[in-house]
Amino acid sequence: MSSPLYEGKAKRLYATDDPAILRQEFKDDLTAFDAVKRGSFAGKGALNAAITVALFQRLEAEGIPTHFLTSLDPTSMTIRALKMLPLEVVVRNIAAGSLVKRLGRTEGERYDPPILEFYLKDDSLHDPILNTDHIVRFGLATLSQLASLRVMALTINDHLRSWYGDAGITLVDFKLEFGTDAAGQIRLGDEISPDTCRLWDAATGEKLDKDRFRFDLGDVATGYGRVASLLGIVLPSA
Amino acid sequence: MSSPLYEGKAKRLYATDDPAILRQEFKDDLTAFDAVKRGSFAGKGALNAAITVALFQRLEAEGIPTHFLTSLDPTSMTIRALKMLPLEVVVRNIAAGSLVKRLGRTEGERYDPPILEFYLKDDSLHDPILNTDHIVRFGLATLSQLASLRVMALTINDHLRSWYGDAGITLVDFKLEFGTDAAGQIRLGDEISPDTCRLWDAATGEKLDKDRFRFDLGDVATGYGRVASLLGIVLPSA
Repeated sequence: MSSPLYEGKAKRLYATDDPAILRQEFKDDLTAFDAVKRGSFAGKGALNAAITVALFQRLEAEGIPTHFLTSLDPTSMTIRALKMLPLEVVVRNIAAGSLVKRLGRTEGERYDPPILEFYLKDDSLHDPILNTDHIVRFGLATLSQLASLRVMALTINDHLRSWYGDAGITLVDFKLEFGTDAAGQIRLGDEISPDTCRLWDAATGEKLDKDRFRFDLGDVATGYGRVASLLGIVLPSA
Repeated sequence: MSSPLYEGKAKRLYATDDPAILRQEFKDDLTAFDAVKRGSFAGKGALNAAITVALFQRLEAEGIPTHFLTSLDPTSMTIRALKMLPLEVVVRNIAAGSLVKRLGRTEGERYDPPILEFYLKDDSLHDPILNTDHIVRFGLATLSQLASLRVMALTINDHLRSWYGDAGITLVDFKLEFGTDAAGQIRLGDEISPDTCRLWDAATGEKLDKDRFRFDLGDVATGYGRVASLLGIVLPSA
């Protein structure tokens, strides 16, 4: 197998014969706290691949343009090659994580409409939070792209909240990444999985997401498996 | 003399016989780096009082509502008692400070229109930066108050840039604080001085502001005195 074009903390991107198409592979690896804590959980990659494929297919069906093309094998999908915006877009329905630690809010405080945050994707700067003036003046996105990101993120939140809600899961917050395709159209890229969402069991409050890894709250693959199963996602056999 | 209602790092507020009016006294003390570095410079309070009085009078004449009422003595002014918004509003014309350190920009990069930033005034949280969603959802200001703050901050910047520019001083960035009066009108409060502005000699680039103290660049009162003198401000005799 050829070497990846790009290897991140939890995924690898490979070229294909078509330069407009890439293969995105999900790793079992997991990092937290600015990559200070590292781990690996058998089956985590396949779970995140299956959850991402299912959610991206559902979002496409609702009219949200994404990078998803086809499911390839249990840990890989083909995607459109996008020019990624150097931003992480975070949607927060309920206070947790940095909202509690950095801004002193009480965990569990609810926001409707949600709070949107934009972070600069830059490991060397530890992904600092940006406001819209920073984004536009630094040329990271245009004002019109920013408006599209806001609308897309809020629409995605409405759909995800409804799907997770029907599955008995509370969608606390999540992170999205976007890019532009050859035609300049903004599309949702990256992944949506328990690595990138905070998900609480609606009945018990149990954390089913990466916080299990961050704070040693229980087996990671078990939590992610519960999310897949509650969403009615059938894992492909390897 | 009665004890102050409030004592900050660089100012004290005292009650007067009229509950709608306070006395704001400027101290010679100076702190930096989250109050880790502390100092005191004879005459600093009087210089900041004189500069603040002059700039607030000029801003009032341009139609900007402020808390300023009268100059009382070389280090004190009477002000309207405002209900302060728990925000620091920062206007940045040129990259310096946290824009360089936190966001990796190059010192000296220019922004036109400027970058506006909002920080939560909370020492225990180290005054974290906020976006507009945080401000509105946390109830720190209404969307309409935020819009007024933006317009007022940009208008104040236009005036200050012009006055400092005419004096041969480059206005790099500055911090403002606002509050509401009894009628609900937003007014500029606090101070505008070399403690709260980054000011560079336009010809030589010499730093004339609090960065002299932060980075031991030269006598503080000398720099502040140059600012007052270049702005044509005559210090009252004590």
